[in-house]
Amino acid sequence: MKRAKERTIVFENEAYITEGASIAGQKEGEGPYGDTFDQIIEDDLLGTETWEKAESELLKRTVLRCIEKSGKTKTDVDAFLAGDLNAQIISSGFAARDLGIPFLGMYGACSTMIESILTGAVFVASGAFHTVVCAASSHFCTAERQFRTPLELGTQRPPSAQWTATAAGACMVEKEKSAIEIKSGTLGRVIDLKIKDPAHMGAAMAPAVADTLFGHLTDTKKSIRDFDKIITGDLGKYGLSILKEIVKEKLGEEADDIFFDCGENLYRDNQDVHAGGSGCGCIAGLLSGHILKEMKKGKYRKLLILGSGAMMSVTSSLQGESIPSISYAISLERCTDGIVS
Amino acid sequence: MKRAKERTIVFENEAYITEGASIAGQKEGEGPYGDTFDQIIEDDLLGTETWEKAESELLKRTVLRCIEKSGKTKTDVDAFLAGDLNAQIISSGFAARDLGIPFLGMYGACSTMIESILTGAVFVASGAFHTVVCAASSHFCTAERQFRTPLELGTQRPPSAQWTATAAGACMVEKEKSAIEIKSGTLGRVIDLKIKDPAHMGAAMAPAVADTLFGHLTDTKKSIRDFDKIITGDLGKYGLSILKEIVKEKLGEEADDIFFDCGENLYRDNQDVHAGGSGCGCIAGLLSGHILKEMKKGKYRKLLILGSGAMMSVTSSLQGESIPSISYAISLERCTDGIVS
Repeated sequence: MKRAKERTIVFENEAYITEGASIAGQKEGEGPYGDTFDQIIEDDLLGTETWEKAESELLKRTVLRCIEKSGKTKTDVDAFLAGDLNAQIISSGFAARDLGIPFLGMYGACSTMIESILTGAVFVASGAFHTVVCAASSHFCTAERQFRTPLELGTQRPPSAQWTATAAGACMVEKEKSAIEIKSGTLGRVIDLKIKDPAHMGAAMAPAVADTLFGHLTDTKKSIRDFDKIITGDLGKYGLSILKEIVKEKLGEEADDIFFDCGENLYRDNQDVHAGGSGCGCIAGLLSGHILKEMKKGKYRKLLILGSGAMMSVTSSLQGESIPSISYAISLERCTDGIVS
Repeated sequence: MKRAKERTIVFENEAYITEGASIAGQKEGEGPYGDTFDQIIEDDLLGTETWEKAESELLKRTVLRCIEKSGKTKTDVDAFLAGDLNAQIISSGFAARDLGIPFLGMYGACSTMIESILTGAVFVASGAFHTVVCAASSHFCTAERQFRTPLELGTQRPPSAQWTATAAGACMVEKEKSAIEIKSGTLGRVIDLKIKDPAHMGAAMAPAVADTLFGHLTDTKKSIRDFDKIITGDLGKYGLSILKEIVKEKLGEEADDIFFDCGENLYRDNQDVHAGGSGCGCIAGLLSGHILKEMKKGKYRKLLILGSGAMMSVTSSLQGESIPSISYAISLERCTDGIVS
């Protein structure tokens, strides 16, 4: 591997996403990309007795589905990198217990999936591991009661609020050449513009996404037009419009059409989710399903994927802290017959 | 880098711990290794108004001290890898905000320091990064009120309970040859022998440590006598005695003298901490101070360091779940004049 340029690690035919799987809830299944998930769960408790156990089960099933689709077995997987929004990432920890695969616990809030893929790609590209699975999950009911209010209260939500997705995504990252190459990864810095409203996460996260986006472009000497799409997850409607404004101001040109936000696109307008979807499972689910599928079909050839996460907790908010955010980026490129097209 | 042998990554003159720093609280300062910390804080709020902000400040100061001791500046550091016990790892996230260094959030409970060093070593050994800082923190007051009972209750603690250390440790990991080489790292699996008592973490974690220990020995074809010491952190008195029993049963010989547990050794017997110390800062603080110093002095030449963490949360315990645990290992070797002695 080459020395990173600032905070961007460039891979040279060293790391590929060879398989992906995603499982989502009923509401996500009714969204515009519902048919891109491998499975829609009908029982959002997945046969368990608590939401937290259900989320862990969801994550575990998604990882197993990913491994099954790849034609490999659990013992072929060198490491499982994952995280989630629950305190002490219990969804991932308990899933790792059941899976028995060597585990690396990650935490980047809703950016965890991209943080995990970036880290997994380094383990693979270094030559240390051959096959890793990177995953993340979220569940509407675990997130609501942890971060917001008990579901039973039926509290009214402001228009800027986002809906935590019940979804999990898993990507297999391998050294073996395949259709989708991970070209580079850019680490995030924790950015805080002092937004304090936990019902307006998009506003808190947009500056972090902008920081990593411009960092990536500078480090790689690329422009935003070098990508077919820049995928963000999950800024939601308002966060995305803030990002577009920042980009316009910085670049002096409109580039609204280049962006696709997973949060804005997970649900339909009539699904009453206000600003859109959020949660680790939002970008994880759409990336591991819809986006990989579109790349394989050839609709997208070059993508920049920016996960974003709000690094707050209930405790930090109650203590009057603002919401610091982070964003990790990976760029993906479609290969054709072993040659980058 | 070479392909890992099972779950053990072997580094070949590719990753070194070039600097370390640790800061601890008053009680830790009164322990047997009190004089090995870079600083003892007198005010356990560190000038802030909450324990959580104090822990974040403690972590930040420790990282800055480590960078300062190395003669480098923040901009020389390619990445900061850290985690802590607080929900959503807020100590680390807020410290990363203030530091401004590209950040990778890790979570392995009390094993986080070793998980971070292992991961950081891969980023460095791969050639992607030159200099990373790996760190972890804990604070007695944040842990007590999150995991146990409000301090004000003064609840009686059973003899098997451990005392969460107020401490932080930071290690700089670099490609540049120095006195302490990271020879290898072994990933942990999440192991659960169905211990449910959160006041007996040592019992929950000992089987995970044994699993990683035997995994490491098998992968590297080494025996425990190949090390001057096997450092565990933080099993405490009872957890360590369980580990010793498991080792004796497996190897058919007593090897009690080879083990040094950070939890058992952080405090003095008369400091009323029952089974010993715990928390991410326990092994992080002793490794980044005492242990590195002893290696530099030549007292230890070959060490195996096993961090261990309990991957539970208050929610999982309240839901009747047992305590799944994980352990990561790194082996360290002292180099003399550029030649491994």
